[in-house]
Amino acid sequence: MGIDPGTRIVGYAILEAPSPRLGGAGQAEFYQGSTGSVYSANGGDSKVVTYGVIRASLKEPLALRLKTIYQGLTKVLRKYRPDEVVIENVFYSKDAQATIKIGEGRGVALLCAANQNCTIYEYTPAEIKKSVTGNGRAHKTQIQEMVKLILGLAEIPKPADAADALAMAICHIHRYR
Amino acid sequence: MGIDPGTRIVGYAILEAPSPRLGGAGQAEFYQGSTGSVYSANGGDSKVVTYGVIRASLKEPLALRLKTIYQGLTKVLRKYRPDEVVIENVFYSKDAQATIKIGEGRGVALLCAANQNCTIYEYTPAEIKKSVTGNGRAHKTQIQEMVKLILGLAEIPKPADAADALAMAICHIHRYR
Repeated sequence: MGIDPGTRIVGYAILEAPSPRLGGAGQAEFYQGSTGSVYSANGGDSKVVTYGVIRASLKEPLALRLKTIYQGLTKVLRKYRPDEVVIENVFYSKDAQATIKIGEGRGVALLCAANQNCTIYEYTPAEIKKSVTGNGRAHKTQIQEMVKLILGLAEIPKPADAADALAMAICHIHRYR
Repeated sequence: MGIDPGTRIVGYAILEAPSPRLGGAGQAEFYQGSTGSVYSANGGDSKVVTYGVIRASLKEPLALRLKTIYQGLTKVLRKYRPDEVVIENVFYSKDAQATIKIGEGRGVALLCAANQNCTIYEYTPAEIKKSVTGNGRAHKTQIQEMVKLILGLAEIPKPADAADALAMAICHIHRYR
């Protein structure tokens, strides 16, 4: 499960990947099949379980928005019980106030995953971009196009926060091999 | 209840102040008694209910530390049921990584208070310093000395994170009049 944290809108996406622990043909195919990006472009190796966003109203004070996000993420985690959760590791923003906000969102997302006993993995934005597009400085639209291609989706996943969460999950499956 | 948030050590402090909603002599005394700082220096107007810290081990990954902090703060909130929670409002740090950490700690502390339906108040570090010492740029030791004086404590409260949380609670009682 990839989580794109925030204090207003949080993207999430759950992918099911062939597990080396389960063995079988799917595994072998998965391990041999990918040369460049994670999957063959038709997405035959992976399954999109779900993706979406949790929205908190800007009319609410910050603490209540965090509560809404906590409840929403916890509900998704309990429903789908992902083994592994991927959260972006951001260290940098030009604006200190924006950086605090990133931390607040990250703190709550990390807590949700820890409370459900998930194993947590973190990647930097550049690692995620490189893993999905081959280019660590790819633009948002390039990433979205590649997410669509890799997962064999009919359209670019929306909203953008959900597409980002899908990119995180793809990155993890790629790097964790 | 004042909370000094963090990702490794979290200070908390609960003060009981005469409430204007309850009326009575205590209230009148409280409202007339303070000219400069919050209380008369003997601390006669307020009661220290409890203070302390929650520690998370640096040997644990961040998400598990946040879980420890969440559980610890929730336990204190459920035991003492404070009506109002004060959390420092920090917008600035020289180092982006430290700023993210401040946000992560703040996010979890705000969530704990919101989950227990507390009303949350935020003050900047300068507001807290000014309220406690009369000087918005007071040093840590000056604040600790004033906290001791204001609350009529025998010693400077330790550790420093708990003293900071006491300062936040004092600031709130002062400013909320």
